[in-house]
Amino acid sequence: MSLLDSLPNKIAADYPWVTSPLIVSAPMAKVAMPKLAVAVSKAGGLGFIAAGYHSDHLEDLLEEAEDLLQEGQADTPVESENGVPKSLPVGVGFITWSASLEKALPSFSRYCPAAVWLFAPPKGFQDLIPWTTKIREATASRTKIWVQVGSVSDAVKVVNTIDPDVIVVQGLDAGGHSLARGASIVSLVPEITDKLRQLRRYPQKRANVLAAGGISDCRGVVAAMALGAEGCVLGTRFLASPESMVAYGYQKAILDACDGGISTVRTTIYDKVRDIHGWPEGYDGRGLINCTYLDHLGGLSEVKNRELYREELNRGDIGYGPKGRLTTYAGTGVGLIREIMSAGDIVRSMREGARKILSGQRQPKL
Amino acid sequence: MSLLDSLPNKIAADYPWVTSPLIVSAPMAKVAMPKLAVAVSKAGGLGFIAAGYHSDHLEDLLEEAEDLLQEGQADTPVESENGVPKSLPVGVGFITWSASLEKALPSFSRYCPAAVWLFAPPKGFQDLIPWTTKIREATASRTKIWVQVGSVSDAVKVVNTIDPDVIVVQGLDAGGHSLARGASIVSLVPEITDKLRQLRRYPQKRANVLAAGGISDCRGVVAAMALGAEGCVLGTRFLASPESMVAYGYQKAILDACDGGISTVRTTIYDKVRDIHGWPEGYDGRGLINCTYLDHLGGLSEVKNRELYREELNRGDIGYGPKGRLTTYAGTGVGLIREIMSAGDIVRSMREGARKILSGQRQPKL
Repeated sequence: MSLLDSLPNKIAADYPWVTSPLIVSAPMAKVAMPKLAVAVSKAGGLGFIAAGYHSDHLEDLLEEAEDLLQEGQADTPVESENGVPKSLPVGVGFITWSASLEKALPSFSRYCPAAVWLFAPPKGFQDLIPWTTKIREATASRTKIWVQVGSVSDAVKVVNTIDPDVIVVQGLDAGGHSLARGASIVSLVPEITDKLRQLRRYPQKRANVLAAGGISDCRGVVAAMALGAEGCVLGTRFLASPESMVAYGYQKAILDACDGGISTVRTTIYDKVRDIHGWPEGYDGRGLINCTYLDHLGGLSEVKNRELYREELNRGDIGYGPKGRLTTYAGTGVGLIREIMSAGDIVRSMREGARKILSGQRQPKL
Repeated sequence: MSLLDSLPNKIAADYPWVTSPLIVSAPMAKVAMPKLAVAVSKAGGLGFIAAGYHSDHLEDLLEEAEDLLQEGQADTPVESENGVPKSLPVGVGFITWSASLEKALPSFSRYCPAAVWLFAPPKGFQDLIPWTTKIREATASRTKIWVQVGSVSDAVKVVNTIDPDVIVVQGLDAGGHSLARGASIVSLVPEITDKLRQLRRYPQKRANVLAAGGISDCRGVVAAMALGAEGCVLGTRFLASPESMVAYGYQKAILDACDGGISTVRTTIYDKVRDIHGWPEGYDGRGLINCTYLDHLGGLSEVKNRELYREELNRGDIGYGPKGRLTTYAGTGVGLIREIMSAGDIVRSMREGARKILSGQRQPKL
């Protein structure tokens, strides 16, 4: 009996196509589209589509996902009952201070994605009550509710406010947006699992805990499971897959980067130059350090920095990297990513590598 | 064959009293004295004594350690050859921008501690060349050289500059001093072990990698080993042992704290109010947020803050905690520490807990 021998019962029941350990691709805004999500789910993971900041094209995205799922030799057939899809084995993620629940709801009724990932409510977790109530109504609770948190107190608030199915515990190593202050999963995951275990005395408080932030390969997967996580979420690693919607220049910057704690930084300037305003207090994003950040540090005005950013957009792929200006969100695990790999192979290699570490076939140290 | 089945050969040879997995108590300045170090080593770990900022009392400290090691039923007898101690099964740590090598050397010749831990050279790792050369000369290389780093590039520099026996990889969750910017051990340990594996093609580059930062219990131990570490270093956890030289108020603050990513902060103000000047560029320290920090954030002058700190010293134990002003260095794992436990029991419980997690006897999730 090892850490990875079986899925927790609730995860096995809620996502029946998943293989242990659960590997999830994060709903990275503008990047995680149906192709990526479906590839991950087909490999026995769970892929998320980013609805991101808005909900405008959700119907199209889910239709595309459905088509892709039915294409070819799907390891993951769409479950159906009398020809009607029961639920779509992918998830959808929303940045809830910005996205519209009302626009999104019809797509939930129609496609019933397996999970919805809610992030960054504008004022507090009570803002998620309408999301969870209406999505549960629209899908007869078949769409499972995932909420991303970055602190112990937020985890407790979420469980007490909306009784989610999954808490995604995001450590400070994560790329892209998260709380500006916090701990890594090393201390955050065990403290949250201990806290939730106390709450679980009440039978409805049954959230599964997943870990995100800094995990890039099978070593991070085993570490997260040892810390008490019941699955792992990866973002940056999937950027270096052909299924990601990122420019070649972005992918090259990911492959070239090393020493992720030093080559990335948490900042709000990457939002500001792209005219993204409205993130709630206390959030920022981690990305590769480039000229936008360095000039900002050096005192360049936001207006001028935004102008330079816009000019840089015309440079295409060479606008990325440490000498470029284009935003390249990435976590501290970026230095572990050395090749482009298909999303399915990423999932499989992490799962197999994790089993090898635990069975002693692959020592993490050689 | 599991992650913890055996010690790496070099560790087993260099510290023959140690039991797998290697658990180390950090040389926390002013706190880690012979009582703590000896208790850890007697339990099959490796305890470090903090020489800290200076080397003035090193002879006395090592004499005390020797006495304690010979006392009672030591699980760890001092190795001796014709009645002369061969090497003392504890280590000694120095903050090298401040401590004096010349003052320390005679104690190395006389007591030959098993390891010396070198941290924060004033300008660069070349400053450690005299330390390593002379300590190796004085002890016929029986005192092993440990160096603490916080980035991949620093790890490579250290290996190429002084060929240490051990690299302590410190992630950003750590309490007390470290690099102000960086990653947690989640990405830092695997990236460094991969890098050092390349260097190991040269036979003299054989440093063992240990992980520090955020580890507070057996879950963190298994995580660190899965990430590729060959042992774990803990600081904060040992503060809550009777063998630590900390005030009752300090220990109470540690037990009371939770949500370590939120209740602690990295800052330099805790040095400034205590008139500690001279840390090299790029370092700061993580401690529990208290009124010193909050007033500093609010714009209180350093001079006034220092005055208030000095007044607070008279308040004793109640000067600690979120409403106090006395410095309480702690890592993000502080929320996992809920009881005072003897240092020996801490070591044993982590070792046994880690084995249970891996054997499936104890699921990290319950």
